[in-house]
Amino acid sequence: MRGAVLHAPGDVRVEQLDDPTIVEPTDAVIRVSATCVCGSDLWPYRGINEVTEPTPIGHEYCGIVEEIGSDVTSVRPGQFVIGSFVASDNTCPHCRAGYQTQCQHRVPMQGAQAELLRVPLADGTLVATPDLPGPELLPSLLTLSDVMGTGWFAAVAAGVQPGMTVAVVGDGAVGLCGVLAARQLGAERVIAMSRHEPRQRLAEEFGATEIVAERGQQAVARVRDLTDGVGADAVLECVGTDEAMHQAIRSTRAGAGVGFVGVPHGVTLTGRDLFGTMVRVHGGPAPVRRFLPELVDLVYSGVIDPGRVFDLELPLDQAAEGYRAMDERRAIKAFLRP
Amino acid sequence: MRGAVLHAPGDVRVEQLDDPTIVEPTDAVIRVSATCVCGSDLWPYRGINEVTEPTPIGHEYCGIVEEIGSDVTSVRPGQFVIGSFVASDNTCPHCRAGYQTQCQHRVPMQGAQAELLRVPLADGTLVATPDLPGPELLPSLLTLSDVMGTGWFAAVAAGVQPGMTVAVVGDGAVGLCGVLAARQLGAERVIAMSRHEPRQRLAEEFGATEIVAERGQQAVARVRDLTDGVGADAVLECVGTDEAMHQAIRSTRAGAGVGFVGVPHGVTLTGRDLFGTMVRVHGGPAPVRRFLPELVDLVYSGVIDPGRVFDLELPLDQAAEGYRAMDERRAIKAFLRP
Repeated sequence: MRGAVLHAPGDVRVEQLDDPTIVEPTDAVIRVSATCVCGSDLWPYRGINEVTEPTPIGHEYCGIVEEIGSDVTSVRPGQFVIGSFVASDNTCPHCRAGYQTQCQHRVPMQGAQAELLRVPLADGTLVATPDLPGPELLPSLLTLSDVMGTGWFAAVAAGVQPGMTVAVVGDGAVGLCGVLAARQLGAERVIAMSRHEPRQRLAEEFGATEIVAERGQQAVARVRDLTDGVGADAVLECVGTDEAMHQAIRSTRAGAGVGFVGVPHGVTLTGRDLFGTMVRVHGGPAPVRRFLPELVDLVYSGVIDPGRVFDLELPLDQAAEGYRAMDERRAIKAFLRP
Repeated sequence: MRGAVLHAPGDVRVEQLDDPTIVEPTDAVIRVSATCVCGSDLWPYRGINEVTEPTPIGHEYCGIVEEIGSDVTSVRPGQFVIGSFVASDNTCPHCRAGYQTQCQHRVPMQGAQAELLRVPLADGTLVATPDLPGPELLPSLLTLSDVMGTGWFAAVAAGVQPGMTVAVVGDGAVGLCGVLAARQLGAERVIAMSRHEPRQRLAEEFGATEIVAERGQQAVARVRDLTDGVGADAVLECVGTDEAMHQAIRSTRAGAGVGFVGVPHGVTLTGRDLFGTMVRVHGGPAPVRRFLPELVDLVYSGVIDPGRVFDLELPLDQAAEGYRAMDERRAIKAFLRP
């Protein structure tokens, strides 16, 4: 099969690789219908996370079950499935509490930018769709593997409730999905923080009611202005930098939540940052498995269309161009068709 | 009147001071029936917080209203009242949300270790008891001004629910009140972290079901042992040091809450501390005003008896000995009778 391999920063190649096989009786192998490049793939691509050896890359996927291990009972060959970017058994105490990314047997997924993918813990990880979806549904279903589930978790972790004023820091695919999630969860006002006109437009299409183009302290001041000096009722932090995290915390009213899902790079909080503001902080790698059944329903019923975050579609063989376009911010998110 | 003044680290003197008077029409002046020394008073007493000039000290109080300003309507002279350590209007958006310590017009109280005390924003700050309480109720009512309300907030902020296993970091008066609060809020198991035998005993009397005497990583390992490797369902951080905060976070299961009320000194969290553990963190200066009516009821009805944290009673004139005894950990908390 063919799959994308990160050889070094800036060097992604699609190569001939061994076909994955069933290793454990709890595995499945799926034929990938659609995969994509994640903002978090850019950390190693940019050399910010070290790349020590050539590594199959990608962790977002949906496709058709090709083969299952002898212990797998919940999915069968021929079904269309979506799975989380972290494989989980969905039975341990953390999974039962809805924190599947902290599963006691979790396996981070990699190598999903490929024709075939081995999925460990298939019963716990994969969710089958009601039928074989048409091609028009693929982009939105694919987002449920990570970015839409992550934006949704950010909103849930921030405590979004109907009627709230919500601010979203970050205009990447996750931030935009966070806007969609906040609106879907009933937010009355959604303040999207973005300086990029095409992303501002998509944020508005996803339900943003206000755009703040400032950053840092000026952005905080704008949010405070927009909320009579009080701060937002919930804030989603979808970047992962120190500036973004502090911007989120200072935009939030006392007692309200910051849901943070940006993988932190250089974020440092003092006790007083939290003590003095009294915000609630909750986040981490989103347990998208928790939300998959509900979000599949919302996509199938046409209520949400998160696939619109893909503004570049390429054949898998051109994965390198997908990375370049996202790195240079020419694309929000690159869809890859194996 | 006589009142305690902190002149320099280690130097507390009870001196003749001017009687406080009504300054604003929203003020009240109360005759203090009982006051006490707080763990947070020890920070400046120990020179960890700077002392730049002689400062009237103390912020926990209850007593009888002596005089009210012309705008005060909710309390009247002769009533017994308890107030928060932060005066608040109880009408601004933060107060209405239950975060009175973030009140837009808040005034930190000081000078409560005295015979008389001016209380700003009296309508928002003071809560009257049903009648003039007997002397046996004074210690418990006094704790509602800070430590019991603070322990209660720690439990609420940590998300304590019936049936949970809760851990409490810190065996000062607040930590012990946190044990009492967790139990009262329905915790099935309360793990108190304490190395001091008299405090362990009081923790057990307040409802602790297990004691962990270890600290740091060993304490975390013990809590994990006691919870089948999962972590506690809620953790109260009642110290304020970096070690205590990290101990709390690492003792908590994914998705569960750390309620932190120890005034932070040197606490630093990285984004990954929170991202990797997925704990919820919420705390700050406790909005004890939110809980005062409910806690007055619980004290009056005999359900809780938090006044047992006082293990030293002194006349106000001996305040210095109260500070020394707490500084040397000879006393958990010193009750002062003006």
